[in-house]
Amino acid sequence: MSVIYDRVALIGLGLIAGSMALAIREGGLAREVTGFARSQATRDVACEIDLCTVCDTAAEAVAGADLVVLAVPVGAMGDVMAEIAPHLAPGATVTDVGSVKQSVIDAVAPHLPAGVHFVPGHPLAGTEHSGPRAGFASLFRNRWWLLTPLPDSDADAIARLDRLITALGAKTDRMEAPHHDLVLAVTSHAPHLIAYTMVGVADHLRRVSGEEVIQYSAAGFRDFTRIAASDPTMWRDVFLHNKEATLDILGRFTEELFVLQRAIRMGDGQQLHDYFTRTRAIRRGIIEAGQDTEAPDFGRPGARAT
Amino acid sequence: MSVIYDRVALIGLGLIAGSMALAIREGGLAREVTGFARSQATRDVACEIDLCTVCDTAAEAVAGADLVVLAVPVGAMGDVMAEIAPHLAPGATVTDVGSVKQSVIDAVAPHLPAGVHFVPGHPLAGTEHSGPRAGFASLFRNRWWLLTPLPDSDADAIARLDRLITALGAKTDRMEAPHHDLVLAVTSHAPHLIAYTMVGVADHLRRVSGEEVIQYSAAGFRDFTRIAASDPTMWRDVFLHNKEATLDILGRFTEELFVLQRAIRMGDGQQLHDYFTRTRAIRRGIIEAGQDTEAPDFGRPGARAT
Repeated sequence: MSVIYDRVALIGLGLIAGSMALAIREGGLAREVTGFARSQATRDVACEIDLCTVCDTAAEAVAGADLVVLAVPVGAMGDVMAEIAPHLAPGATVTDVGSVKQSVIDAVAPHLPAGVHFVPGHPLAGTEHSGPRAGFASLFRNRWWLLTPLPDSDADAIARLDRLITALGAKTDRMEAPHHDLVLAVTSHAPHLIAYTMVGVADHLRRVSGEEVIQYSAAGFRDFTRIAASDPTMWRDVFLHNKEATLDILGRFTEELFVLQRAIRMGDGQQLHDYFTRTRAIRRGIIEAGQDTEAPDFGRPGARAT
Repeated sequence: MSVIYDRVALIGLGLIAGSMALAIREGGLAREVTGFARSQATRDVACEIDLCTVCDTAAEAVAGADLVVLAVPVGAMGDVMAEIAPHLAPGATVTDVGSVKQSVIDAVAPHLPAGVHFVPGHPLAGTEHSGPRAGFASLFRNRWWLLTPLPDSDADAIARLDRLITALGAKTDRMEAPHHDLVLAVTSHAPHLIAYTMVGVADHLRRVSGEEVIQYSAAGFRDFTRIAASDPTMWRDVFLHNKEATLDILGRFTEELFVLQRAIRMGDGQQLHDYFTRTRAIRRGIIEAGQDTEAPDFGRPGARAT
C-alpha cells in the first residue's frame, strides 16, 4: 500500500473513526493520524489503546491535515465544522461519515472556507457496539461506502478520497444526497426504528410476564434487540435529520402491516403465504448482491466464530 | 450416551426433524429413527442424505415407535394425528415441535388413543433455511426447548422426553400453553410479521428505485430479510393459529410506533434518546441470559466463521 494522505484528522473517536484509524495504520495509508473527541473519557481510552495521536482540541487535530473526517453524530456536524473551519489547511478535504447526507450538507457547507473541499460520505458498516474500543481494522472490508459529492465538488479531491476508501477495503459508489437519504430510510433507518419499537413493547411486557421475554428470546426478537442496542445519540440524530423520508417509509410500513394484520384476523392464509413467498425472494437478491451470506444464522455468532 | 427410546418416528422431515435425526444418531439416543414426509421429493432427499429410515406412509413410520415427533406445520398437526392414531403403539409418547401450543393441543388431543401419552413441546431453535438438507446435529445445543404438558400428562413420559431433549443439548423448561403462546407472540411471532412487512415495503420501493434497496441493504434491513426468508407455510400457520396473541402484540406495537413517529415529527430528541437507552438495556439482559453473545455482528456471519 502507498501513502494517500499526509495527515488524516479524525473528529469524533467512535466505532467508525476507531476502525478507520486502525485500518489506515495497518495499510500505511497516511503518515500520521490525529484524533479528537469531545469527551475526555473517550480521549483517554483512545490514548490508552494507542489509536492515533490524540489532541486536546479539534483545532490542534486538524492543523496541517490534508484529510479531515467528521465522525460525530449527524446533529453535531454543523457545530464541529464551525469550530474547525478557521484551522483547516488550504487545499484540505473534509469528509464525513454521517448516516444522513442532505442535512449534513446543509449544516456543513456554509462553514466551508474557500479552497477547502467537502466530499460527504457514508460507510454502510457498523456493529451494535460504540466507542473507540469497538473499532476494528476489517470493519469496512467488502462494505459499501457511498459518496454524495456536491455539483461543485473538486474531482481530484473526490478521486483521492475514493482511493483511500478503496484501500480500506470498501466498495465506493456515488449518488445524490436526497436519493441516498430515501434509500437508507428504507434499508436502515425505518428498520432501526421498528426494532427499537418492538424491543420497547417487549420491555413493557417483561414487567408483566417476568423475565421470560428475555429468557426465551427466539430468533427474530434476538436480532431486533441487537439492532436496538445501537448508539442512542447517533440514532436520535439520524431520525431527526432524515425526518421526511423516515416518516414516509414508516407510513407505508404501517399501511402494509395493517393489511397483513387484517389477513390474520380474517384467516386469509393464501394472502399471508403469497406475501411471505415474495419476501423470501428479496433475501435471495441480497445474497446474490454479496451483502450477506447463505450461512444459516441461529443467533449464536460467538458459537460460530469459535 | 445411552439409548433413551427404542424407535423414534419423525413425521415431517424439515429443518427440525432433520436436525433431531442427526443429533439422535450422533448421540446414540435411539436404536432406530424412522421418518415420513408427505412430499415425495422431501422423502427422496431424506433417503439420499441417509437421514433416517424413510417410510412410504406415516402409519409405517409410527408402527412400533415409542416416541413419535410431529414436525409438520402447526396447521397440519390435527390431520397428521388423525392419520397416525390407529397405528400408534400402546404406551407410546407423542410430542410435537410446533411454534404454537394451545391450538396444537386442541387439534391433536381429541385424536389421542387411550394409553398413548401426549407431551406438547417447542424447541426455540431454527434458521431461515428449511427442508431436510437444512438440518444439523448441533441445532439444539444450548437452546431452550419448552414443554407444555397437559394436567393429565404422564409424569414418566414427560421425564423420558425431557432426558432425550437434554441429551440433544437443549435446556428444557415447562409452562402452560396459553402463557407460552403469549411469550412467543412477543419474542418471535410479532417480530417475524414485522420483518416480513418491512421487507415487503422495501420490495415495493425496489420497483421504484431500482436495485439500490438490495444493493445497499445495511445492517438492520439485512437482519430483517434473513428473518423474512423463513418458511412461508410454517409462518402462515403460526399466525393463523396464534391469532389472538399476535394481534394483541401487534396492536401494542403500532401504538408504540405511533408514539415514536410523533416524537420524530415533533423533533422530540429527548424522548427518542430515552427510549433508545431503555431498549439497549434489554439487550444486555439477553446476553446475560445466555441467549446471545456480545460478539459484534456486522452482518457477515460467513466472514466471521472463516
